[in-house]
Amino acid sequence: MVDLPHRLGERVLQLTDAAGRALAGREVEVAQTRHAFAFGSTGFELIPHANGDQDAMGAASTSLVDDWLGVFDTATLPFYRGDFEPQRCVTQTHRIRTAARWFAERDVRLKGHPLVWHTVKAAWMDELPLDDAWQVVLDRIRREVSDFRGLIDAWDVVNEAVIMPVFANEPDGVPNVISRIALAKGRIPLIREAFEAARETDPGATLLLNDFDLSSAYECLIEGLLENGVQIDAIGLQTHMHQGYWGEEAMLAMVDRFARYGLPLHLTENTLLSGELMPAHIVDLNDFQPESWPSTAEGEARQVDELVRHYRSLVGHPAVQSITYWGITDAGAWLGAPAGLLRCDGSRKPAYDALRELVRGEWWLAPTRMRTDDNGVVRVSGFLGDYRVTAGGSSAPFALERSAANAEPLTVALG
Amino acid sequence: MVDLPHRLGERVLQLTDAAGRALAGREVEVAQTRHAFAFGSTGFELIPHANGDQDAMGAASTSLVDDWLGVFDTATLPFYRGDFEPQRCVTQTHRIRTAARWFAERDVRLKGHPLVWHTVKAAWMDELPLDDAWQVVLDRIRREVSDFRGLIDAWDVVNEAVIMPVFANEPDGVPNVISRIALAKGRIPLIREAFEAARETDPGATLLLNDFDLSSAYECLIEGLLENGVQIDAIGLQTHMHQGYWGEEAMLAMVDRFARYGLPLHLTENTLLSGELMPAHIVDLNDFQPESWPSTAEGEARQVDELVRHYRSLVGHPAVQSITYWGITDAGAWLGAPAGLLRCDGSRKPAYDALRELVRGEWWLAPTRMRTDDNGVVRVSGFLGDYRVTAGGSSAPFALERSAANAEPLTVALG
Repeated sequence: MVDLPHRLGERVLQLTDAAGRALAGREVEVAQTRHAFAFGSTGFELIPHANGDQDAMGAASTSLVDDWLGVFDTATLPFYRGDFEPQRCVTQTHRIRTAARWFAERDVRLKGHPLVWHTVKAAWMDELPLDDAWQVVLDRIRREVSDFRGLIDAWDVVNEAVIMPVFANEPDGVPNVISRIALAKGRIPLIREAFEAARETDPGATLLLNDFDLSSAYECLIEGLLENGVQIDAIGLQTHMHQGYWGEEAMLAMVDRFARYGLPLHLTENTLLSGELMPAHIVDLNDFQPESWPSTAEGEARQVDELVRHYRSLVGHPAVQSITYWGITDAGAWLGAPAGLLRCDGSRKPAYDALRELVRGEWWLAPTRMRTDDNGVVRVSGFLGDYRVTAGGSSAPFALERSAANAEPLTVALG
Repeated sequence: MVDLPHRLGERVLQLTDAAGRALAGREVEVAQTRHAFAFGSTGFELIPHANGDQDAMGAASTSLVDDWLGVFDTATLPFYRGDFEPQRCVTQTHRIRTAARWFAERDVRLKGHPLVWHTVKAAWMDELPLDDAWQVVLDRIRREVSDFRGLIDAWDVVNEAVIMPVFANEPDGVPNVISRIALAKGRIPLIREAFEAARETDPGATLLLNDFDLSSAYECLIEGLLENGVQIDAIGLQTHMHQGYWGEEAMLAMVDRFARYGLPLHLTENTLLSGELMPAHIVDLNDFQPESWPSTAEGEARQVDELVRHYRSLVGHPAVQSITYWGITDAGAWLGAPAGLLRCDGSRKPAYDALRELVRGEWWLAPTRMRTDDNGVVRVSGFLGDYRVTAGGSSAPFALERSAANAEPLTVALG
């Protein structure tokens, strides 16, 4: 772990009993409970389970839950408007909130994705006049951020703004109203107003701009927003690699380009296939969806190698704060691609075990016995995050935080 | 000309003699002298001639001058810093000003290109600390705009800002200071300060941003600038088509994307080859410079067809205000490409004759005899621009302007 100093913390704990007396020379157990870094995945796959739809999940339900929680600590929940509100005012709020609560009870952090996007559109909106449609957009931002406040504390507020005003690859051939609004308003006013609506509804939320276009276009958009005083809390970078892993060098060069804005970077949508790659000439990934796209032994060997390199390199970059893998399982994966860490039958690919070995192994403090000194002091070091110390029958939480590296001893009362 | 209403004007002239008496029933001659639309080319090729370097020009000098002035009315003059000021404070000011005067005396409008660019760098600047280098940039903006005020009234203030901070294809391998400044300052502050320096030096000048990157990146940059209140007078769009003509549809779709900002569009750098095309996989055009790149009969036939289609379509778009062909002759053409309208030996390609037939033929009012009515009135219609009316031994200028379409008769005193 010596190559990741920006990920590590240390804390001196002064342990006492309930009366404040030092627990001298006592055996205690220290264990990490969550990473500060967000190791995320989509939470879409567990929505049926969280809602008690056992029929929809079948026997795979339990192992899927265990596998998901066995490596991930942050979930992206779906707010695609066409799915979330297919008819005006008929929403999935209850179902998604049930899922959000299920995750929250398991200490999983949540992000909502996305609040404004031109794709997976709600077709009923296309018929509205532009001004009305924009009010309907702002209203849904306020509604969702309000309805999920306290559960979801991060939002992809605007998704894919670079292409938004010029997007033309409409599945139904009808120009979508979000793109038409973006063309009429301009990207910056649209983003500013969307962020303002989210911010005023939940001032504590982490608000992201998210894009797949990682060219200079996104740089120019971000620079325009920052120069305009639009507060972006984190920059979302999509890296669906259906056409092949970029390699550490290209990936980190891209990360460096966006790191220069001084904002946290979230690698929001990561995909590495365990089967044939998509041909390089495909521009809109949606245009390639073969009948059958199996996971292969060769592909799985490649995937595990690339996945480990990808996570190691990104965790090694100080600006990266979050990596979200885009779906744990091949079952129902976007485009039908073998993009998961589990196969369609629920069995684990090598990539799953390797990622778990990193996130909950090499980078993780498993329950560890330590002995306090004569003053009741233990020194804990490990990955930044949440921890628990246990002695006798009682335990208490504490955190390893970057800013607390040289802080005074932390007094923890047990029992 | 019925398909180009936005290019046409009409004016009723009330002709009088010097004493103010109507010239009734008189034969007069009306002739166009210049287009309002800028039909430009680089003026680089005529700098030796304008400076009296007959040796450098040879016998081709006279025909080159005639051919240039026979179709073009607007010249781009070179201010590439590496050439203009190869050693600090040793500048080409005198030579370029001599050329500027030569053009101005022939009623040719002038644009300076470029004031800030990372390519054709002055290597001596790379050694300066960033802050000093930026002052040297601002100083040269003020110096050139001041030195050429009254001669050059348009400037490409910042060239290729989209790639500027991330440009890495350095011919000498030394990271250039302009890119490093752009990375440190951000594109918008760099452009804002550069434009401010130019604006305060010549408030009447037309200040352009110019780029070859016509993707969403340039849109995002422009939107960021406009939202920030940076005043851009015209958007420069480079269309070097060494890899083939895009066709009217793609070209006008691009023009439409930039027309939505409500600013005049200048097609600043147009190239159509009369020889083999550059392979499509080349990204930086500078990376392809074959030993020999001849103009061919087949290529010239293709070039003339494409050139006419290109000019017709652009002149047909109301937002386009200027088209600059990137070099009249193959002699000394960028990359050695057969990009000119004249061959290396000075002979005319079909494209030259065709462009002349449009600009000074179909779209031009050649000297035309007209007769005034009983009140001394004639009605003139034609392409917007400058005109001259002559009667007897005296003549007077007038203009056909868009805004004057329904204006009162213009009284013109002759003699």
